Amino acid sequence: MTKKIFFLIIVSIAFASAIILFDLTSIFKDSEINTPTYYVLDEAQISQIKDLTPIIAQALEECKSKGHAGIKFPKGTYHFYPTYAPDFYTAITNNDNGLKRTPFPLFNFNNFHIDGGGSDFIFHGKMLPFIIEDSNNITVSDLSIDWDMPFFTQGTILENNPVNKTFDVKIETPFLVEDNRIYLTLERENSPYEEEFGHRYAKQEKYHQRLGQNIIWDRSTRAPIYKHGLYSGFDNSFFFPAKALNDSVVRLTSKYKMVPPIGSVFISKGEYLNNRECPGFRVFKSKDLLFKNINVHHSGAMGLIAERSSDITLDSFNVVLREDSNRLITTIADATHFCNCKGLITIKNCTFENMLDDATNIHGTYARVKKIINDNQIAYETYHPHQKDYFFGAKGDSIRIVDKNSLLPKSEILIIEDVKRINEKVSVLSFNKSIREIAEEYDGIDNISWHASAIIENNTVRNNRARGFLISTSRKVEVRNNYISSQMAAMRMSGDLKLWNESGPCDSLIIENNQFVNNLHGGNKQAIILIDPEQHLNKSQVEGYYHKDIIISNNDFYTFDSPILKAESVDGLIFKSNRVIQTDAYSPIFPDEPNIKINHCKNVTLKDNTYKLLTGEYLNLSVETNLN
Amino acid sequence: MTKKIFFLIIVSIAFASAIILFDLTSIFKDSEINTPTYYVLDEAQISQIKDLTPIIAQALEECKSKGHAGIKFPKGTYHFYPTYAPDFYTAITNNDNGLKRTPFPLFNFNNFHIDGGGSDFIFHGKMLPFIIEDSNNITVSDLSIDWDMPFFTQGTILENNPVNKTFDVKIETPFLVEDNRIYLTLERENSPYEEEFGHRYAKQEKYHQRLGQNIIWDRSTRAPIYKHGLYSGFDNSFFFPAKALNDSVVRLTSKYKMVPPIGSVFISKGEYLNNRECPGFRVFKSKDLLFKNINVHHSGAMGLIAERSSDITLDSFNVVLREDSNRLITTIADATHFCNCKGLITIKNCTFENMLDDATNIHGTYARVKKIINDNQIAYETYHPHQKDYFFGAKGDSIRIVDKNSLLPKSEILIIEDVKRINEKVSVLSFNKSIREIAEEYDGIDNISWHASAIIENNTVRNNRARGFLISTSRKVEVRNNYISSQMAAMRMSGDLKLWNESGPCDSLIIENNQFVNNLHGGNKQAIILIDPEQHLNKSQVEGYYHKDIIISNNDFYTFDSPILKAESVDGLIFKSNRVIQTDAYSPIFPDEPNIKINHCKNVTLKDNTYKLLTGEYLNLSVETNLN
Repeated sequence: MTKKIFFLIIVSIAFASAIILFDLTSIFKDSEINTPTYYVLDEAQISQIKDLTPIIAQALEECKSKGHAGIKFPKGTYHFYPTYAPDFYTAITNNDNGLKRTPFPLFNFNNFHIDGGGSDFIFHGKMLPFIIEDSNNITVSDLSIDWDMPFFTQGTILENNPVNKTFDVKIETPFLVEDNRIYLTLERENSPYEEEFGHRYAKQEKYHQRLGQNIIWDRSTRAPIYKHGLYSGFDNSFFFPAKALNDSVVRLTSKYKMVPPIGSVFISKGEYLNNRECPGFRVFKSKDLLFKNINVHHSGAMGLIAERSSDITLDSFNVVLREDSNRLITTIADATHFCNCKGLITIKNCTFENMLDDATNIHGTYARVKKIINDNQIAYETYHPHQKDYFFGAKGDSIRIVDKNSLLPKSEILIIEDVKRINEKVSVLSFNKSIREIAEEYDGIDNISWHASAIIENNTVRNNRARGFLISTSRKVEVRNNYISSQMAAMRMSGDLKLWNESGPCDSLIIENNQFVNNLHGGNKQAIILIDPEQHLNKSQVEGYYHKDIIISNNDFYTFDSPILKAESVDGLIFKSNRVIQTDAYSPIFPDEPNIKINHCKNVTLKDNTYKLLTGEYLNLSVETNLN
Repeated sequence: MTKKIFFLIIVSIAFASAIILFDLTSIFKDSEINTPTYYVLDEAQISQIKDLTPIIAQALEECKSKGHAGIKFPKGTYHFYPTYAPDFYTAITNNDNGLKRTPFPLFNFNNFHIDGGGSDFIFHGKMLPFIIEDSNNITVSDLSIDWDMPFFTQGTILENNPVNKTFDVKIETPFLVEDNRIYLTLERENSPYEEEFGHRYAKQEKYHQRLGQNIIWDRSTRAPIYKHGLYSGFDNSFFFPAKALNDSVVRLTSKYKMVPPIGSVFISKGEYLNNRECPGFRVFKSKDLLFKNINVHHSGAMGLIAERSSDITLDSFNVVLREDSNRLITTIADATHFCNCKGLITIKNCTFENMLDDATNIHGTYARVKKIINDNQIAYETYHPHQKDYFFGAKGDSIRIVDKNSLLPKSEILIIEDVKRINEKVSVLSFNKSIREIAEEYDGIDNISWHASAIIENNTVRNNRARGFLISTSRKVEVRNNYISSQMAAMRMSGDLKLWNESGPCDSLIIENNQFVNNLHGGNKQAIILIDPEQHLNKSQVEGYYHKDIIISNNDFYTFDSPILKAESVDGLIFKSNRVIQTDAYSPIFPDEPNIKINHCKNVTLKDNTYKLLTGEYLNLSVETNLN
């Protein structure tokens, strides 16, 4: 019965909305039956429309007002432009804030399903495909998202000159050379004024952007190049002097140790604080969400960023290159990211490849004590520019104050009685108890009501810059049956009051039956599993331990290098029954490092692990322990 | 009696506000009398406070809730920092949109007076001193505003090298040289993170900005240098290669025809679309406002920008250099600006000097037809990036559609029945009548309900870049008894659908008894009075006239050059009884130009004008007329 209603195409009706830009009577079909039905789009009609944005935005208003169960697209390729897209001022943690234009503004929706029917959604210019806010029980399924012109620059190295430190790049993405610099260019509509006078403000409006965060990629492995730091830097302020040799080839001048090899691929995103504007999915203050059978081929920030939300499932939510594409990059930042979430996060059956950042990151964010106002009130501040207007907490949330140097809790649980926002950096918190004798300026505050549990299983991570899974949450997390081949650590459990202020110690983390394959080829001195809370004190000065109960068992570590596990400040660490298998995928970068480094941990068990060399011999894992 | 209450200092009471950051009981004095009284600040207390921002923001909340008549400062010097300032997302026409931090958030105030008592208000970093929105009968008086660190770079040329095209500048404002470029640096607070790691994001957050819109100033005249285009360009994308010679001297490399002379002054603001963030006064949707005895010594955008407001008086609202200051610049943009206003704008007894743009500009803004949706609806768009989220009109406003090529009205008066914002560029307008046969894509639409009358008298304009008064409004305007010595035209009456889309033909403009003194020394080919609607058609192709009834009489034009008046597309132009007096302030730049150029005007009267040469002889004014 459900299925029957699902595909029902019945009598059409007209829209009543005030923002009708098109006559939709022949496009949408509505139901006369009282049971909530799906809006079903007429394939013949919508396939003719250049820009589906205003039609879908209007359809969603209609869906909400009529209580439809969902909207269903016939399988096809649909284009979305920003011109008539509604916009919303949106503060998105770990991405760039601003007015975001979207065709799918899901605000205050309940029990709603967006069924793409296997369609390709192609976006143009600065857009945010899906905003899901204050919504419950939402499913998005069976669609792919991509952009016609990407948010990065890609080009193949044709020639290089180690003496002059120049290299010639055949650029494969839209670009502009001007003022001795190369700019990546994003898609935008020309106004008649601009037709007459040129793109006068394209640079200032960041449609042309200076390059930033450059990295060299290896075409043969489709991954970041081995030891990329020799050829490129992921720093922000640097941009290469550039000279156009012809319409598609640009000569760049390097400041790095070596020029990139011929045949390798130059990759760069735009300027920092302008290069995370367009995530694929923005989720905020929502609950019970399912993302299923989705391919994110590209996005101009993270693939999915969920914040202050609970109970989210990603099932076959893939961040993958399009099969026929020459591109080497999917998302400009993390594939997925969960901040300040609770309930259960499930990530299963997903492939995350070729991102310019991590596969996932589940964490809270420490705000920091800015001022003690009185016994029960503090002003707090968030420091990273990507945490402006971060939604730290609300009335009733449980908070803990952590010491600014040790990162360890220094208060019992406090309850928020009131939050008053002052500006995008500073808010005032009122607590149920006195904090006068406890809190000091610059201490961290952690919202422990919003730590999530997670199950991460049967996923593949490969060919991305940076890490696999980053876990910072004190609820139970299981990481099972995954394949992770990342450029840096496969897993990182950190916590810091430095750059990102990521909060939440781990408590009850299980990592088992995973395959870690040739991680750490970027050249960073990490470990495949890296547990490194960034305390300001030396670990030996800290009384107590940051993380608790981490079990790493029955995993396969295929690795060309030495570092397997680095663990700091853990109470209860089990590393057992793991198999390390040496490979010759790359030359070792840190062959003299011990396989396992344990620094200031308690209750550590290392047993039944094996280490098989290329020769077939077995060796004991080398362990360096500092238990002080 | 009023005066007595004014100075009353009575029993103090505590605040109930949730955002109390300070104990204010000893700072504010309240009245027990039922008559609305002023909040009076305790001098001894507030003079000790480093940052008055949170105290004033809270006091204003209290003033509103208690119905106070105003807030009174004891004479003193007070500092305002952004740290605890409330912020508001604000779209300000002709300035930069964004979250603005202010100590004076006057939203929904009525019958309120901010009495500065002759105080100096010193601002730090990115702040907007006064926001006045949805407020009526507001007076701000007796105060000055200034910034500790300015929004421009200033430096004296010590040496130059015409061969290498370099010049050495002793920089007098905060700066940074990095990556072979010079940055102006704005004030910001260091976070502990930044203390440890440096201003990692100062460039990306635009606290360090590349220079933009450079111009050379003349220290002896304190005005822009004669023929500045020889040495500098007001373009946006250009920035000089720079090398620090020592802590204060930087060698810049010019791309212009000549290097600036030794002793002249290099002036530059930051990057376009980031250099108009902080006007002094933002006025929006307000009525009956008086600004009296105010000195704006500096602001990081316009001095005062009023939008969608009516009946505003500026009396001794001065944009002037501080007497003891070495600075040569006051406001980064126009001293004052009125867009989409109605009622009567009065500007009297003001001095506007040393701005980087005009003294005032009174105009509407043409939006443009983007799409004809149906008989009664269009989508319109605003094109200039400084017109994002421009408030074009509301229900009941009278609109006229103007032809995109001739700028002449092509519709009768239409009434807005509804406005629906789609995004910051596009909105949908519903009219009371059909526009189907009238409107075409890219035609302009003009909101004629919001054209203001104006009286501009007894003002002085001097030493600024650009023009004096720009008038584009079809209500009566009188410009009398002013002294105007501007670098470009003293007065401009234009109208365009090109760059700025400034709307409103003049109708009944009187310009009399003014002194125009040595204008046009910048080298632009203009005229002291420039009437030049920027129609896309040749004037001879246009049937009809843009402006109407302009009287220019009894003025003194002291001028070293030839061009006095250029008038195009006026029906009813009188230029009579004016005295032109030749000076030797500068060498003539366009000596072969006629004094008066009339192109495509009707009903023109030129009579009783005199032209006295340096020799004492009198000459007839030369006139070039094209009446086709």
